[in-house]
Amino acid sequence: MTQTEPRAADLFTAERLALARRAAAAAGLDALLVTPGADLRYLTGYHALATERLTCLVVPAEGDPFLVVPALEKPAAQASPAGNLGIEITGFGETDDAYRLIARRLPPNTRLFAVDNHMWAEKLLAFQAALPGAQPGLAGDVLSVLRMRKSPAEVAALRRAGAAIDRVHRRIGEWLRPGRTEREVARDVAAAILDAGHATADFVIVGSGPNGASPHHEVSDRVIRAGDPVVVDIGGTTPDGYCSDSTRTYAVGEPPAAFRELYDVLLRAQTAQTEAVRPGVTAEELDAVGRDLITAAGYGEHFVHRTGHGIGMETHEEPYIVAGSTRPLAAGMAFSVEPGIYLPGTFGARVEDIVICTEDGGERLNLTGRDLVVLPG
Amino acid sequence: MTQTEPRAADLFTAERLALARRAAAAAGLDALLVTPGADLRYLTGYHALATERLTCLVVPAEGDPFLVVPALEKPAAQASPAGNLGIEITGFGETDDAYRLIARRLPPNTRLFAVDNHMWAEKLLAFQAALPGAQPGLAGDVLSVLRMRKSPAEVAALRRAGAAIDRVHRRIGEWLRPGRTEREVARDVAAAILDAGHATADFVIVGSGPNGASPHHEVSDRVIRAGDPVVVDIGGTTPDGYCSDSTRTYAVGEPPAAFRELYDVLLRAQTAQTEAVRPGVTAEELDAVGRDLITAAGYGEHFVHRTGHGIGMETHEEPYIVAGSTRPLAAGMAFSVEPGIYLPGTFGARVEDIVICTEDGGERLNLTGRDLVVLPG
Repeated sequence: MTQTEPRAADLFTAERLALARRAAAAAGLDALLVTPGADLRYLTGYHALATERLTCLVVPAEGDPFLVVPALEKPAAQASPAGNLGIEITGFGETDDAYRLIARRLPPNTRLFAVDNHMWAEKLLAFQAALPGAQPGLAGDVLSVLRMRKSPAEVAALRRAGAAIDRVHRRIGEWLRPGRTEREVARDVAAAILDAGHATADFVIVGSGPNGASPHHEVSDRVIRAGDPVVVDIGGTTPDGYCSDSTRTYAVGEPPAAFRELYDVLLRAQTAQTEAVRPGVTAEELDAVGRDLITAAGYGEHFVHRTGHGIGMETHEEPYIVAGSTRPLAAGMAFSVEPGIYLPGTFGARVEDIVICTEDGGERLNLTGRDLVVLPG
Repeated sequence: MTQTEPRAADLFTAERLALARRAAAAAGLDALLVTPGADLRYLTGYHALATERLTCLVVPAEGDPFLVVPALEKPAAQASPAGNLGIEITGFGETDDAYRLIARRLPPNTRLFAVDNHMWAEKLLAFQAALPGAQPGLAGDVLSVLRMRKSPAEVAALRRAGAAIDRVHRRIGEWLRPGRTEREVARDVAAAILDAGHATADFVIVGSGPNGASPHHEVSDRVIRAGDPVVVDIGGTTPDGYCSDSTRTYAVGEPPAAFRELYDVLLRAQTAQTEAVRPGVTAEELDAVGRDLITAAGYGEHFVHRTGHGIGMETHEEPYIVAGSTRPLAAGMAFSVEPGIYLPGTFGARVEDIVICTEDGGERLNLTGRDLVVLPG
């Protein structure tokens, strides 16, 4: 019998809601209140936009979860995977008070409710006003534990996302040429991210020459010149809601010798880090594996950010691979390994793969080569 | 002397910050705390992404405003219009506690701070923990008053956005044809929104036949058929951060007679409403102008949403044109006028223009025709 790859249809099942309810009860919470965003999509498959109107999934520790949506969103909510979960979907009118409607349906002794970490302040304060006897907390404490360890269906979804962004990196030579601006290149890359199977192109960083030394530079009208190193950090979200994120640094024509030296150090660090991934290693230990190596080579002060971030239905989520985090890695965790070295005013480099922690070590989901690619200059 | 149209460069000046500070002081607030989003962009021109790392503009009622950003975002913040406002921009490291850093810089007697309405709950609760003696409120109460009345430079920016989305509607016949799916049409429309001069395509609703009866239907794989009415509601954001939003309902081939009848009622309502715009008319009165007419024609229960929403640096902002709002319109306000009639399971129609309230009445920013366009079926 061959093992079949899990499919998108396996993603959104009622199991997640049941687990969230149990975790909330175990944490002593009376209810989780979840507004549009990755938590809502994770729990129900409903991909709703956050707007001024309240949309809120209510997961009481006791009783059945239910979804409250503006009446005019009800058809869309029912047509989403949430419509197949067997939960009540209630619509409210334009002039109804949805906060009071929810507060009235919670048990009268509700003392501790937790909201999704990205709930808008106006909605959190409105819930506080509607539940004057209760204290607010963050649902992330409960939900990130669930979201952090990916199921086989989720790993498969991230693998599809990784393969999609790899297809874009493999085509980079079509667009990255001297004489073009970063913005022109980025526009072609954004279109290719969609062509490669993403539903949205979430970010395109093209940092050429000195712009590559600003880690979160996006794009500019700088014209790319022969000899420039160029940091290309790109990602999108697939139709089933999982994110891709991969960085490669290219040279457009032969780069300065000092850049090759820096890149070799970086690549050794990134390789050592991906090879160090295994259950039980802590986030700060994994960070140190690369940081120590880069520091020993004399570039320590130029590695100005953490090693990485978790990824799933958000590009940035737990676990963060950062100094000070004693969180041990565990099988099923998915995160970026992306050390960088930045020489202000000169150039920079970053190499990034998404890695899954498995029982046997790290599995890279980005498979394009990591040796420096020198494009025609 | 000819009057020159204000330019994008006139948008982001230090005046907005000064007005916000004065308004905060007048409201008895000790400080405004503003994280990435439209409020931050409005006040500083800094277009930052909301992430797990804190980026926060602090506007104390007494003293100078300052911007706190992750160290790795500092070059991007300085390169933004915020870099020209003469305010301090402070970077913090990956393991610093930015909330405490800000709390320590606020006056020790800080009692009331207000956060932007879209601040993430995790950040609001972190500020509450760092400022245990202080009460949180919403900055929107102060900032929406500023943002609601557009300056001449902002009206010009919205006019450019309106002209851009009009260019897309004028081309709709290139894509909207029987035999194509809503999704195929939407993809072409999204590309055209970018081609027309938007920096992002924010939403594309293509609701054909019965899907047009769900006001917030987005797209599906439904194949468009001859005779279908199709609701096309589209918008984007221009490079200077102002939003467009316009809906037209098309017929692909001759529609049913019942649809023409419905559309005529709708168009009379939308026309009456745009003509009723003037300072002093309240939001609920403007809503009633269209609702009464639609109700008199027998379609009242099928106009299931409010008449419109304000627009500026967000697609949806104050003022909302909705029953129950006694807010009087004032010169400089910009909002949508978009009544709709929806017959579940059959078809729907909506017509939407962005309108500026001027001293002399309403100025429509969307100028494509509103008579029913029948495309080749």
